[in-house]
Amino acid sequence: MSLTIAVDAMGSDCAPQPEVEGAIQAVRQCNVRVLLVGQQDVVSAELARHPEAAGLPIEVVHASETIGMEEKAAQAVKVKRDSSMRVGLRLVKDGTADGFVSAGNTGAAMVTAKLVLGVIAGVDRPALATVFPNSARTATILLDVGANVDCKPQNLQQFAIMGDIYFRSIFAGRFPTASNPRVGLLSVGEEEAKGNELTREALPLIKALPLNFLGNVEGRDLYNGRADVIVCDGFVGNVALKISEGMVGAVRAILKESLQASLIRKIGFLLSRGAFQDFRKRLDYSEYGGAPLLGLRGVAIVSHGSSNGTAIKNAIRVASEFARSGLNQLIEQKIHAAQDRTSAAE
Amino acid sequence: MSLTIAVDAMGSDCAPQPEVEGAIQAVRQCNVRVLLVGQQDVVSAELARHPEAAGLPIEVVHASETIGMEEKAAQAVKVKRDSSMRVGLRLVKDGTADGFVSAGNTGAAMVTAKLVLGVIAGVDRPALATVFPNSARTATILLDVGANVDCKPQNLQQFAIMGDIYFRSIFAGRFPTASNPRVGLLSVGEEEAKGNELTREALPLIKALPLNFLGNVEGRDLYNGRADVIVCDGFVGNVALKISEGMVGAVRAILKESLQASLIRKIGFLLSRGAFQDFRKRLDYSEYGGAPLLGLRGVAIVSHGSSNGTAIKNAIRVASEFARSGLNQLIEQKIHAAQDRTSAAE
Repeated sequence: MSLTIAVDAMGSDCAPQPEVEGAIQAVRQCNVRVLLVGQQDVVSAELARHPEAAGLPIEVVHASETIGMEEKAAQAVKVKRDSSMRVGLRLVKDGTADGFVSAGNTGAAMVTAKLVLGVIAGVDRPALATVFPNSARTATILLDVGANVDCKPQNLQQFAIMGDIYFRSIFAGRFPTASNPRVGLLSVGEEEAKGNELTREALPLIKALPLNFLGNVEGRDLYNGRADVIVCDGFVGNVALKISEGMVGAVRAILKESLQASLIRKIGFLLSRGAFQDFRKRLDYSEYGGAPLLGLRGVAIVSHGSSNGTAIKNAIRVASEFARSGLNQLIEQKIHAAQDRTSAAE
Repeated sequence: MSLTIAVDAMGSDCAPQPEVEGAIQAVRQCNVRVLLVGQQDVVSAELARHPEAAGLPIEVVHASETIGMEEKAAQAVKVKRDSSMRVGLRLVKDGTADGFVSAGNTGAAMVTAKLVLGVIAGVDRPALATVFPNSARTATILLDVGANVDCKPQNLQQFAIMGDIYFRSIFAGRFPTASNPRVGLLSVGEEEAKGNELTREALPLIKALPLNFLGNVEGRDLYNGRADVIVCDGFVGNVALKISEGMVGAVRAILKESLQASLIRKIGFLLSRGAFQDFRKRLDYSEYGGAPLLGLRGVAIVSHGSSNGTAIKNAIRVASEFARSGLNQLIEQKIHAAQDRTSAAE
């Protein structure tokens, strides 16, 4: 049976165009129904520019307000009671939709999602998880990439549990390790003594969990496929994500520049263009859909402000897979089990 | 007049071969004298394999012990009183050498350097600084990249002062911004309110300094040339450095793979090979020499364990430039000035 995903139609930098394109691609490819949430007239006008969308299971739900990229999250959420984010998340809360996708202000999306949906019992902080491509042709999940800049050791322990479950559910059948993901704690060296106060305290907590735990891993392990899930606080994770995005840009610029340097090289570039398209695709986070907020009582996917239609489509696909997987029930069970073990141990 | 650089001949993964090669390249290209510190017989034997080295200003200084990559720094430094690191740094301390280079155990090098040379008055913690290439064809210095995993706000303030001075001295005349480097504080967003406890407390301290301070910068700014100097704690900096190294590897692997996928692409690759050589060179940290430990009473450069001869040569060049620049005197002056301002403000 097909699920219903609510999409913040006013979120991305070029909204509502990528959202509308993404919705059309999604309903065609992913067996979903889409509710585009935003200013009725604006969204309908964009939808009308796509005659092929006539008859597709896409509806517009009106929301009078929009939260801008530059607005302070807490403030904007407090003032704008009828924002496209809040309305879209209410659709999930009341069961009208099975999941929510937004390419808008990440901070505001997180605050609103926590406010409207609430967190799973036993989870202290929701975490934003992102999928990174790697040279082993698999993928590595890093969390938290920005929901929590100052973490406690038990937050990292909960992130490990949620990351393990998330990897299993989205990569089951795609990667052999999905049946028993290798979980690592991001640190500055592999020895247990290496790390900062936070990671040194978190290590034994994660070690105590029934996980395939590698112990400390290093920054380089984000790209070599050695770990399936890497746990860190939201400050380090956000820096890691943005450094990677920045480096992809720099690599493209440097390569392009040297490939233009001579006629021979230009010809070479033309002949090998396909390779660069693969390359772009492999390093293009939009191919991996958005980043889920794990630990909420509901499904909320945040995607990049610069998302194109494909990125939105993939985020909608991830939202529907997430909703189908019963992932949140699993998170609740395993978090409780971990807490029972801890209190038993005390 | 030519300076003397002491080189830990037992440091790198393939020691003493890269150290000997690097020493030969350096004395030929950089107007320096090199003291190779390590087990006399081993180093002399390697040197003997290079007849071209005969008559060059390279001497071997015996040290009976070697600290391995896997040894715990504090422990190894305590026990091995005659390690190549300790002997080499003593040569700097007693004025026999103007600087020291090691591609060995970074932790041990830092502990030994702090122990033997001591820190500049007013500096609480030395910082390890690395040069990153960027898409603006300039370079960005990141510090600390691993000397201090848990930092206080005033440590970051001191890193800002030292980074500014280091950028001015090594890039004077090469980059226009070297006359007034743009300094940024690594955080998760540009607004002053963004960041973790540490960065929020460090921001006003750095703002109070007479620097060209950009405020908060993000991970992506490490590669876009927006900042010349980026300050962070050693945990975040080490993760940033290793993620970048890991990503360079992944990019190469992914590109190589797709470039082998068809005959046409292979031909294209052959024609554009020069571009990939440029690309490698631009992203190859060994081209930038090692990472200096700033804040010590002397010159100590740490380079990567996987250093080849070129990397060692560049580290020796950086060490001699550092020693010539009178950089440490400048650091001492500016740190004192900053502290006077602070106490005056209180």
